[in-house]
Amino acid sequence: MQFTAKDIALMLKGTVEGNPLAEVSHLAKIEEAQAGSLSFLANPKYEQYLYVTNASIVIINNDQQLAAPVKSTLIRVENAYSAFTILLEAYNTFKLQKEGIEQPSFVHESATVGSNAYIGAFAYISQDVKIGNNCKIYPNCYIAGNVKLGDNVTLFPGVVIYFDCVIGSNVIIHSGAVIGSDGFGFAPNPDGTYNKIAQIGNVIIEDDVEVGSNATIDRATMGSTIIRKGVKIDNLVQIAHNVEVGANTVIAAQTGIAGSSKLGENVMLGGQVGVVGHITLAKGTQVQAQAGVSRSIVEEGKRWAGSPAIGYTADMRSNVIVSHLPELERRVRELETIIKELKKDVQ
Amino acid sequence: MQFTAKDIALMLKGTVEGNPLAEVSHLAKIEEAQAGSLSFLANPKYEQYLYVTNASIVIINNDQQLAAPVKSTLIRVENAYSAFTILLEAYNTFKLQKEGIEQPSFVHESATVGSNAYIGAFAYISQDVKIGNNCKIYPNCYIAGNVKLGDNVTLFPGVVIYFDCVIGSNVIIHSGAVIGSDGFGFAPNPDGTYNKIAQIGNVIIEDDVEVGSNATIDRATMGSTIIRKGVKIDNLVQIAHNVEVGANTVIAAQTGIAGSSKLGENVMLGGQVGVVGHITLAKGTQVQAQAGVSRSIVEEGKRWAGSPAIGYTADMRSNVIVSHLPELERRVRELETIIKELKKDVQ
Amino acid sequence: MQFTAKDIALMLKGTVEGNPLAEVSHLAKIEEAQAGSLSFLANPKYEQYLYVTNASIVIINNDQQLAAPVKSTLIRVENAYSAFTILLEAYNTFKLQKEGIEQPSFVHESATVGSNAYIGAFAYISQDVKIGNNCKIYPNCYIAGNVKLGDNVTLFPGVVIYFDCVIGSNVIIHSGAVIGSDGFGFAPNPDGTYNKIAQIGNVIIEDDVEVGSNATIDRATMGSTIIRKGVKIDNLVQIAHNVEVGANTVIAAQTGIAGSSKLGENVMLGGQVGVVGHITLAKGTQVQAQAGVSRSIVEEGKRWAGSPAIGYTADMRSNVIVSHLPELERRVRELETIIKELKKDVQ
Repeated sequence: MQFTAKDIALMLKGTVEGNPLAEVSHLAKIEEAQAGSLSFLANPKYEQYLYVTNASIVIINNDQQLAAPVKSTLIRVENAYSAFTILLEAYNTFKLQKEGIEQPSFVHESATVGSNAYIGAFAYISQDVKIGNNCKIYPNCYIAGNVKLGDNVTLFPGVVIYFDCVIGSNVIIHSGAVIGSDGFGFAPNPDGTYNKIAQIGNVIIEDDVEVGSNATIDRATMGSTIIRKGVKIDNLVQIAHNVEVGANTVIAAQTGIAGSSKLGENVMLGGQVGVVGHITLAKGTQVQAQAGVSRSIVEEGKRWAGSPAIGYTADMRSNVIVSHLPELERRVRELETIIKELKKDVQ
Repeated sequence: MQFTAKDIALMLKGTVEGNPLAEVSHLAKIEEAQAGSLSFLANPKYEQYLYVTNASIVIINNDQQLAAPVKSTLIRVENAYSAFTILLEAYNTFKLQKEGIEQPSFVHESATVGSNAYIGAFAYISQDVKIGNNCKIYPNCYIAGNVKLGDNVTLFPGVVIYFDCVIGSNVIIHSGAVIGSDGFGFAPNPDGTYNKIAQIGNVIIEDDVEVGSNATIDRATMGSTIIRKGVKIDNLVQIAHNVEVGANTVIAAQTGIAGSSKLGENVMLGGQVGVVGHITLAKGTQVQAQAGVSRSIVEEGKRWAGSPAIGYTADMRSNVIVSHLPELERRVRELETIIKELKKDVQ
Repeated sequence: MQFTAKDIALMLKGTVEGNPLAEVSHLAKIEEAQAGSLSFLANPKYEQYLYVTNASIVIINNDQQLAAPVKSTLIRVENAYSAFTILLEAYNTFKLQKEGIEQPSFVHESATVGSNAYIGAFAYISQDVKIGNNCKIYPNCYIAGNVKLGDNVTLFPGVVIYFDCVIGSNVIIHSGAVIGSDGFGFAPNPDGTYNKIAQIGNVIIEDDVEVGSNATIDRATMGSTIIRKGVKIDNLVQIAHNVEVGANTVIAAQTGIAGSSKLGENVMLGGQVGVVGHITLAKGTQVQAQAGVSRSIVEEGKRWAGSPAIGYTADMRSNVIVSHLPELERRVRELETIIKELKKDVQ
């Protein structure tokens, strides 16, 4: 892939300053760019690199002033950052374009697959599955019976979706993620053994959701585990049975949400957070990494930290003192000694 | 699937009150039930729903009193909850029935497979593998050389079992779980690099064990990592080399157990718990979510919390004070001021 | 596999004491050995077992004194432990020997594969992939377009490597690990939704690295996520986009490193550790299990613990007091009472 400054300016509706025939073959950060790189400058903090970069082309804001000469050809646009993300997107769309049904793959005769599908070799599509248009099912994926996928869904290699689950449109699921495995439900017997409680519900993932690699989302015991529109789930996250995650909630890596908890919209959970079962987190709740939320949070838009989680500011303050606890203990001991003396003096 | 009240009452040895020809097609919670739903009432807390539910049929206890008229057809049984779990089980058995060897799959000529097996497409069964009766090996599973599986084992899609491992009967392993990968053993060299210590042991999983999706259980360096009868392991759990997990122990999601630790019977570990290596947890030990157990626990049946873990009650008490530490520090500061004054007064 | 004491002594350049024709078929710890076992004694703590073991052969150090008669045939060598790890290694090399291209597998016509390769059934090798010599690609692995693998690389079943990633020589990646999935990058919109930021970088894994099962290493947004030479990564570890892990660093299970953080050489992270994004950990830093590192660490070779992490010794001291906080609070309360009384007395 080789593009000229002229081509790119045309695509981004920008204007060229310098050589319109300058060619680039790849995208790079301005501080790491080399001959053939296309870079951008949006953050003023990085302006210094503009005057020393080896990038063949740099995209900059229309109103960017130049404090020194620039070797690179420039393309001026309204918003350099947005323009660059459009290029990133275009690059990836190009890299990830795939179409056709590779062999050997397994598509049950009762399954329906929409137009422009990619179905990789060794992918398995079961009975009564319905797949929308423009979907990509990479190799080694498994889609169980009666699963429904909307349009523009991408399942990267090795994704597993258990029976009856429903996936919306524009959903991306990364490799190794497991959707719809059994919830962890067992009834104890008097002799200490357990009986499995059959998990007959499903998982519903709405539109525009992304699920990270090796994340796990369990099916409901009955009813549905629900991931609402626009939710972003990072790698190795665990979502237990009957959980409901509100729209546009973001969950960082290795976080776990226990059974039947309900998260509001636009919640943000840091990495390695734990949320106990059967609680509710209000809309806009933010939880710091490694925190453990053990009670429902009813007030919207607050920030929490610690395990068990308390208000963020209180946690920060407590942490400072925890790290100096031996000193606090010493101060108390000194007070005890002084007071003993004082009591003697007073009596 | 359509069933009448009469059919179901026959199956559950119950008695019908209402229309014996009422039909249902699916199971649902009483509070979410609709026409065509079969529900149950066991917990008195939910009795209110009995009088308003749209369920076509509700299973109730023989001794359930009716405080108001009920629209649904009722089926009375000895234990409504147990009866319902039997139906859940039957439903899932039906949904998950599979038989036959799909193609293309890979079964080594030296492998033996018992009766009524399901082997999915793209499953791989290596040399000298022995598989019992009624086993289901879903697509994309991999079973390495010399592995043994008992009867009624289910491996959901994408399970991997490394060589020499032994799996008992009635074991369920969910998608993406990895059994028998190398323990994390490396010997340091003087120059800061590491030599891998070959891991030649195996994993033994006894009967009636369930392993969650994307869980990992490492093989022993020598000897065996052992998961005893009836153990239930949730998603994304890590069990290191040479660990032994006692019978009927339950381990919630994302918990990790480091090398060579031994857990007694009927231990319960919450989610995201960490257990350090080379320790022992007594029978019946219960550990709260996110706790970190750093020492052996010898007393049976106690509850632990915190990181490092201390007794549960002590931890609860300490947590309350931790969240008010700045106040405690202020109180100490005030005492210091007062005492300074007092000392002046006294002197 | 049957070997005589004479065979083994020859291989290890040792000398036989006892029956040179004694035969062994497997390796075992001295305390668990039986007839047919080959064991070793290196640690003086285990010497007692030498006089009671049923092992047919025991490897011991040249300078090992015998305090009592020994039934087993002995093989004396310079370093019994090293000699035994050589045997472990040989055993595993034998167990894991594989060669040839199994069918059905998918190898794109533009891919190049070096000599002595094993490519298992249902493995998928995409366009422009380059694989070195002596590589083993087990069944159900997926290697995306333009990936490069060095020599002697082993990918256990179900490994996924996304496009453009570069893997060095002597790398071992265990089952279910995902290399190069998208970094977790989203730009917030004013309406609360998020736009995905395309992740066009890659992952570079240098020589001699081992990656545990179901671990995830995300590709960089731009540039590379880099795992340097000799790094050892345990199961279920998460490495986010643009992270750089220094040579010979060791990361235990379930630990997570957030975006753009840089770890120095020979860092050691315990299990379930969290490292926040955009920080630096100095060479030789050691972090205890479950700790949360929230700030850059500049001093080399120090030990850290707690969440947020503080110096190891300070953390140990604070933990002791945390577990006795209710008592400390009571002491402060007593002081308050005494002082109230004292003040009355003084006034």
